[in-house]
Amino acid sequence: MKHWLAALAALAAAGAFDGVANARTAGEILNSTAPEEWRAFDPEQVMVMTLADGAQVLIEFAPAFAPLAIANIKTLVRQNYFDGLAILRVQDNYVTQWGDPRAGSPQARSLGSATSAVRPEWSVRRGKAPFVELRDGDVYADDVGFSAGFPAARNGRDIWLTHCYGMVGVGREEAPESGSGAELYVVIGHAARHLDRNITLVGRVIEGMEKLSAFPRGTGPLGFYEVVDPSLTIQSVRIAADLPGGGPAAGLQALKESSKSFKELIEARRNREDAWYHRQADAIDLCNVPLPVRRAAPAG
Amino acid sequence: MKHWLAALAALAAAGAFDGVANARTAGEILNSTAPEEWRAFDPEQVMVMTLADGAQVLIEFAPAFAPLAIANIKTLVRQNYFDGLAILRVQDNYVTQWGDPRAGSPQARSLGSATSAVRPEWSVRRGKAPFVELRDGDVYADDVGFSAGFPAARNGRDIWLTHCYGMVGVGREEAPESGSGAELYVVIGHAARHLDRNITLVGRVIEGMEKLSAFPRGTGPLGFYEVVDPSLTIQSVRIAADLPGGGPAAGLQALKESSKSFKELIEARRNREDAWYHRQADAIDLCNVPLPVRRAAPAG
Repeated sequence: MKHWLAALAALAAAGAFDGVANARTAGEILNSTAPEEWRAFDPEQVMVMTLADGAQVLIEFAPAFAPLAIANIKTLVRQNYFDGLAILRVQDNYVTQWGDPRAGSPQARSLGSATSAVRPEWSVRRGKAPFVELRDGDVYADDVGFSAGFPAARNGRDIWLTHCYGMVGVGREEAPESGSGAELYVVIGHAARHLDRNITLVGRVIEGMEKLSAFPRGTGPLGFYEVVDPSLTIQSVRIAADLPGGGPAAGLQALKESSKSFKELIEARRNREDAWYHRQADAIDLCNVPLPVRRAAPAG
Repeated sequence: MKHWLAALAALAAAGAFDGVANARTAGEILNSTAPEEWRAFDPEQVMVMTLADGAQVLIEFAPAFAPLAIANIKTLVRQNYFDGLAILRVQDNYVTQWGDPRAGSPQARSLGSATSAVRPEWSVRRGKAPFVELRDGDVYADDVGFSAGFPAARNGRDIWLTHCYGMVGVGREEAPESGSGAELYVVIGHAARHLDRNITLVGRVIEGMEKLSAFPRGTGPLGFYEVVDPSLTIQSVRIAADLPGGGPAAGLQALKESSKSFKELIEARRNREDAWYHRQADAIDLCNVPLPVRRAAPAG
């Protein structure tokens, strides 16, 4: 066996294991996209969360699917509601959740002009959102694919966002309208598709996901932390549009799901050409499709 | 909103969000199993990895599927090969991998009497392993279900283990026989099903998974660590049969996939009766099915 760095280089060259940046054919596709195949993020639809160690997590909102919850979250953010709150819950292979450790107690932070109960936004009618279908089907829904930049599912009447890795939703109690957006969660494990259309998804993490997934798992029921540690504090949450020049959202782009390159990328992941693979899957499930994000090359 | 601890209690009572231990109906099923529905783990088929902080991870081997790789891993373990080696790679939403940071260099640890190349064990012929089918189908394979305690897939000819969360496999380079078991990985994200039948799976984590999934993600290509930190050291790896009384494997039991309770549990996860759910999925995909493990109640 070669030294592991040499072995790693060989693996990377062969596109071994994974990673769009390393899979040869997928990498080739992403290196030869046309500029118009990428869209900029609307800084009004990007939330920037700064963690205790200064790391930033960027979340893109999906206003086509959850306009009420997103409006309420923005109201909270613009009151600096989340600043100094904390990661509350990390349940392995499930979710990381954040909000006010004192919510519900007399010491709870005020929601200010935000509402404490937003009606559920679990799906939209077909025709209200675009849909690019993925061909390989799904265990849970009639069709799956992509809508407005997000993984989605569809039946004869409705379209809804799906609980793939990195998707962000609004925690709630038993009543459908009991979520306000003051407590949010992100999927950190195998897609929790049974939650689809049971809880409002508001967007997905487009940068910094590797921070939200690596917190120690909580030891209380449902992965709640029994002690809130300073390393779990949220320094601040801002809307990118409120930061100078759009803050870290500036220059960030997503590959359009309507683009030729995205279609080719899906094929390259259904059947991987690189030599490491001895058998092609000839299929891909929704939550294994990468939704590429890049920092735009500086203008020439 | 109630205080979060009160809210948590309410959620737990309602079986909200997830967790076999908390989902009311699944919990009821698991609380009323018959003793004979559980199997003990064979301590000869359980590997105990002790991490730098003393936490222990237990992995059950699948000898019906990968006898050669497992034999080689046991040879390595019984030479104390892994003691003092390290977590090498954590790639977000993909794998955690461990082995010798100096593999391939002149300072590499000797494999001793183990072999450096084991032929691939990617599937077995139908009839060579049991198979309990899951009814909801799959995107990747003709049938999916459970075999000898593990998630598995099947076509007209073969049965193979699948890359669900917590499954453990043998790292390899490009050649199919380039894996020895000296470097192992575990799935820490959405099921990486494109790896099925491309790399040898040897078992799954039955305890301690939440430790392997929460290491910081590596910053090098493919999530390799650029600097190996002392907190990433593996104290020791042992076969449970070599520990007094079977070590931490003693008293640990798995719910048999042939049991009535397991069938009922699957139904309880396809359609969740607790009040938090306003819409039933009426389906479940293979890697969302829990494979319950418990510590046996002391004899009465």
